[in-house]
Amino acid sequence: MQTKGWTLSPDRCFDPDPAQRDLARQLYNEVKDLPLVSPHGHVDPALLSDPDATLGSPADLFIIPDHYVFRMLYSQGVPLEDLGVPTRDGSPTATDGRAIWRRFAEYFHLFRGTPTGLWLSDELTTLFGVDEKLDAASADRIYDHLEAQLAKPEFSPRALFQRFNIEALSTTDFATDTLDHHKKLHADGFTNVRPTFRPDAVINLDAPAWRANLDRLIQVAGTDIPDYPSFIRALESRRAFFKELGATATDHSALTPHTHRLTDEEAGALFDRALRGQATATDAAAFTAHMLLEMARMSAEDGLVMQLHVGSLRNHNAALFDRFGPDKGADIPTQTEYTRNLQPLLNAWGNDPRFRLILFTLDESVYGRELAPLAGHYPAVLLGPPWWFYDSVLGMERYLDATVETAGIYNLAGFNDDTRAFASIPSRHDVWRRVTSNWLARQAVRGLIDEEDAAAMARELAYDLAKRAYNL
Amino acid sequence: MQTKGWTLSPDRCFDPDPAQRDLARQLYNEVKDLPLVSPHGHVDPALLSDPDATLGSPADLFIIPDHYVFRMLYSQGVPLEDLGVPTRDGSPTATDGRAIWRRFAEYFHLFRGTPTGLWLSDELTTLFGVDEKLDAASADRIYDHLEAQLAKPEFSPRALFQRFNIEALSTTDFATDTLDHHKKLHADGFTNVRPTFRPDAVINLDAPAWRANLDRLIQVAGTDIPDYPSFIRALESRRAFFKELGATATDHSALTPHTHRLTDEEAGALFDRALRGQATATDAAAFTAHMLLEMARMSAEDGLVMQLHVGSLRNHNAALFDRFGPDKGADIPTQTEYTRNLQPLLNAWGNDPRFRLILFTLDESVYGRELAPLAGHYPAVLLGPPWWFYDSVLGMERYLDATVETAGIYNLAGFNDDTRAFASIPSRHDVWRRVTSNWLARQAVRGLIDEEDAAAMARELAYDLAKRAYNL
Amino acid sequence: MQTKGWTLSPDRCFDPDPAQRDLARQLYNEVKDLPLVSPHGHVDPALLSDPDATLGSPADLFIIPDHYVFRMLYSQGVPLEDLGVPTRDGSPTATDGRAIWRRFAEYFHLFRGTPTGLWLSDELTTLFGVDEKLDAASADRIYDHLEAQLAKPEFSPRALFQRFNIEALSTTDFATDTLDHHKKLHADGFTNVRPTFRPDAVINLDAPAWRANLDRLIQVAGTDIPDYPSFIRALESRRAFFKELGATATDHSALTPHTHRLTDEEAGALFDRALRGQATATDAAAFTAHMLLEMARMSAEDGLVMQLHVGSLRNHNAALFDRFGPDKGADIPTQTEYTRNLQPLLNAWGNDPRFRLILFTLDESVYGRELAPLAGHYPAVLLGPPWWFYDSVLGMERYLDATVETAGIYNLAGFNDDTRAFASIPSRHDVWRRVTSNWLARQAVRGLIDEEDAAAMARELAYDLAKRAYNL
Repeated sequence: MQTKGWTLSPDRCFDPDPAQRDLARQLYNEVKDLPLVSPHGHVDPALLSDPDATLGSPADLFIIPDHYVFRMLYSQGVPLEDLGVPTRDGSPTATDGRAIWRRFAEYFHLFRGTPTGLWLSDELTTLFGVDEKLDAASADRIYDHLEAQLAKPEFSPRALFQRFNIEALSTTDFATDTLDHHKKLHADGFTNVRPTFRPDAVINLDAPAWRANLDRLIQVAGTDIPDYPSFIRALESRRAFFKELGATATDHSALTPHTHRLTDEEAGALFDRALRGQATATDAAAFTAHMLLEMARMSAEDGLVMQLHVGSLRNHNAALFDRFGPDKGADIPTQTEYTRNLQPLLNAWGNDPRFRLILFTLDESVYGRELAPLAGHYPAVLLGPPWWFYDSVLGMERYLDATVETAGIYNLAGFNDDTRAFASIPSRHDVWRRVTSNWLARQAVRGLIDEEDAAAMARELAYDLAKRAYNL
Repeated sequence: MQTKGWTLSPDRCFDPDPAQRDLARQLYNEVKDLPLVSPHGHVDPALLSDPDATLGSPADLFIIPDHYVFRMLYSQGVPLEDLGVPTRDGSPTATDGRAIWRRFAEYFHLFRGTPTGLWLSDELTTLFGVDEKLDAASADRIYDHLEAQLAKPEFSPRALFQRFNIEALSTTDFATDTLDHHKKLHADGFTNVRPTFRPDAVINLDAPAWRANLDRLIQVAGTDIPDYPSFIRALESRRAFFKELGATATDHSALTPHTHRLTDEEAGALFDRALRGQATATDAAAFTAHMLLEMARMSAEDGLVMQLHVGSLRNHNAALFDRFGPDKGADIPTQTEYTRNLQPLLNAWGNDPRFRLILFTLDESVYGRELAPLAGHYPAVLLGPPWWFYDSVLGMERYLDATVETAGIYNLAGFNDDTRAFASIPSRHDVWRRVTSNWLARQAVRGLIDEEDAAAMARELAYDLAKRAYNL
Repeated sequence: MQTKGWTLSPDRCFDPDPAQRDLARQLYNEVKDLPLVSPHGHVDPALLSDPDATLGSPADLFIIPDHYVFRMLYSQGVPLEDLGVPTRDGSPTATDGRAIWRRFAEYFHLFRGTPTGLWLSDELTTLFGVDEKLDAASADRIYDHLEAQLAKPEFSPRALFQRFNIEALSTTDFATDTLDHHKKLHADGFTNVRPTFRPDAVINLDAPAWRANLDRLIQVAGTDIPDYPSFIRALESRRAFFKELGATATDHSALTPHTHRLTDEEAGALFDRALRGQATATDAAAFTAHMLLEMARMSAEDGLVMQLHVGSLRNHNAALFDRFGPDKGADIPTQTEYTRNLQPLLNAWGNDPRFRLILFTLDESVYGRELAPLAGHYPAVLLGPPWWFYDSVLGMERYLDATVETAGIYNLAGFNDDTRAFASIPSRHDVWRRVTSNWLARQAVRGLIDEEDAAAMARELAYDLAKRAYNL
């Protein structure tokens, strides 16, 4: 078998300057084996709750569920059907894992210089032991190799969970979820796998199937919801249920971070209109803006950390959405304003020592202009790590460059891998640990911090900040 | 003759780190002599269609027509009259090329650290053999030298075209242009000089002299245009004419990328109002937004690649515009939104394999936030290179930093020199080839790509991407 | 006494690459001892007008008045009361300087990687001779040392003024200030301490206590102000008074740079409404937009340089404002638009050789998109240095990266320290001189400028540009 050898540089992500690289390596060596803290992500808890779960075929693992991957091939003209992405109406798409893999291999060069390329390369070589570069010629050999590896017990999700040294893993779960997988995980001793309370589907009145979601809330809360006060009580009861199963945080998604307090009467009238199926788009936006304040109040009272992920215009491509549904790589960021939008919420809760708000953005222009000044002032505010498109080497560097000088590192929330690709978790944390070590090494060799401080900061960024931010 | 020697570093644009620089040099050496592909620019085709055309005096070549140059002197208080810029009313300005050149030389230090300074330095030393630094003291000697060089037959535009190794050069031409120069060029075998169809002057109802432009369209299309359907047919016929003379692309300029489909009835009524001289500013904006969709439709049908250059608030300085007219360095960028504005156009045509849209911006904050995610999803979308103020060493680096991690390089359109300064074309491509080689070398020495990939990517960026993007 | 030694790197702020660092050091050595030109800042003139003034206790000097410092501790949950920040209602806060200092020392790690940390480290070590790192353990020893130093005559403000080698220092003063301190300074020969005319409190009709400010204007101008024309005359007379005492500039603060000319009748009617206490928020915004044009007119006539500091949403945290008042670290930047907003002002005065406008921003996305193109075209416009949160190593580098390629350095206004912390002035200028030297060294080792140009540019940035910009 003729192969091009494939190994990653042990110094990847580090700057080439020898003095900086030496120190980066030294800082990285001190943090690289720290346990992984994963306080926000989208791993399916079923993978871990079922001791017999597997990662499936190489196509199941790397391609079919990963919109980071298939959107790039789609952008170059590869139909999603060829990649096995399921359709909403059930019309057939490719099912042969090997054929799907070949298509992917043929286009693997598209990922040159991208974080997806870096994660995949690390997973394939470091985790799975692939030793030749992936392309059309090597596709079949690597597919065979991966199939053989994935069949081994040490590649079961639970075995990997131990091997990855994951100290804490939070999933993201609908407010209406019964958390059966988490119950099973608790029973099996996996108390470090925690749910996160995500109520958008019942709070955003214009969410698809809002009424059905509300009915589901009624069912799982075991109470009728005839009006706004009972809706609030039901949400409070669900939060308490999530806390019992280990949740330490909530997560909120919205197009904008707009917050605005309604009177109880206004909120009640608006909720009543929604119950009658008469809520307008304006109503929905007002209700979301109001409910973010309510969620902040509940967080102050029950101690769940509030996360806010805003700024994505979801499902930009209508034809693709009609055929394949959401989360297909067609979510496009928009400009986002935080200073004015968050003022009502921060004036209500930003000085409350019981409250914590972690902010995420897809608009890098706000890092230095709005987010770092907010985090560098309000006791309640921390900045989440670079999100989505910016979970990358250069994205992390821009984030550190733009926020640390104003907010310091102690107003940051450490790292989130934010992934549904379970097997990629170590690769993602590794990039963060490398990039932060290298960034700190740069500040040190420029004389802006000393090496003692750099070592302390590297550990904070790799481990401590995330634990403290999420009360883990 | 006492001179300060003037030579440029052979390693200019490269990072100082020895490992990175070695690899940058190696990558650059492989691409520096590739033919130049120039798919978008503003060279006057008359320069090439007439075998006897010359570049004129040093002032004609370097100063009088170049708003990149004279706006910088104007910003420091030098009247445009002193630089020979012609007035609209014909009132006199400086005509003595040598006096204009002296004024320029006296202020040449203003260009320190600017791309204009880099291009001019490269042209003067590499192309024209100047060997002392330009300043007030050397102005006359250098003027004499340049005059002597420009008088030689090897400095005729056609001779330079060969010497520059230009494989393809596209001009930008009014939709109403008779393309006589291009006909002559075709007849002389210069089939690699192509027109580009630019219809703004007849599409933007608020364009200066729109009615006169429409009359000219009627004349060249050889058909009456009493209504909207005939207007559409005339445009289609002009596009076909441009294609016959080698055009592969269209170019569209607008203040914003707003797109919005009107019904045929609405578009017709609006066009009728314009014919009656009654179109409002709102009408004009709506019609442009609609016509961008129509242009996309025509592109899908006739295969001409659609370019969109948006975001410049033209003629910001009213007094200067009144006296000197457009394109005098007083066009100031504005914040630009693509995600929502392009959604109608991309929902209509973004998934169509026949359609290609190349996007340019003057708002760097959208590179990572909007443009790279759009290009990294829609099959039709490619990103044009950094434009205008950002066609610079650091501008290119920010562009690559902000786009490649999300879109990869294969959703980029390579380089455009976008210049009317014919003699500067090689210098501009050289900067791009140096900067991309250096950027790739940096990724390689950081272990983010390997050297084999870096070499393949360098060639794509220097040559292949532009050819494929524009079907050349 | 057991100490961790504390010395700063003599090469701080420089890049690690040896070639770049050597040149940076060489450039820096040529400019580091040039006199300090401080044309914009907030030093209290009383510190210098009274020969017996002192800097107070270490807490008075470093913590209590410095919102850069206490906002960071507040963001991590330290009450401002613990830091001795005075309340508006006089309710007590900490008064024991040593206890306040201990609290600060305990949290000094928050400033790792921030410009405040860099300035403080430089002041403590270089100016005050502290030789162990500040933390909870060393807090008391360092407090004792600082107290002893501050008691020495060579640490009096006037002694430091000489030691700092300050050639020019401009304060910022209300339009209604009687400038008694400046009169005393002039009498004592400190003619290089100059006032700056700041009229916001009488121009912004919605300023707190506008009516009281107007009454104060009536009093100091010695004239009644029954209408708009007399208001204008009073401002003109105050400007003349400031000029007599050495002022060369005015300073204007607004939420946005919106400019718009009202007719005299409109302005008069609006001013009358304000006199009757009936001006609305809309009126106030319109009047400010108009008065910026009036201020530009006056600048063209009296030669005072006009500075515009815009984009801060002041007093974002209502509860904190109620308790502690303004300037408490709760001012949050907002997105700011210059291209359209400044067009009326620039069309009126931007080509006038008598007028100069220096622009500042808290929105870095406009550096390259709007500010550099404006400064690179209009003769009147210069760009102020990076302001507030961006007065930092990386902030300066982004500023130079984003502006110089378009505007050159000759459309920049050099450096402002913009500080009320008198003892920090040398540290702030030192960072600027280091960063600009390093930035120029980088351009030079990349072959983008030559060393001769780099040396000339380093001196301009350190000294000459500021002097010319402010007519000093």
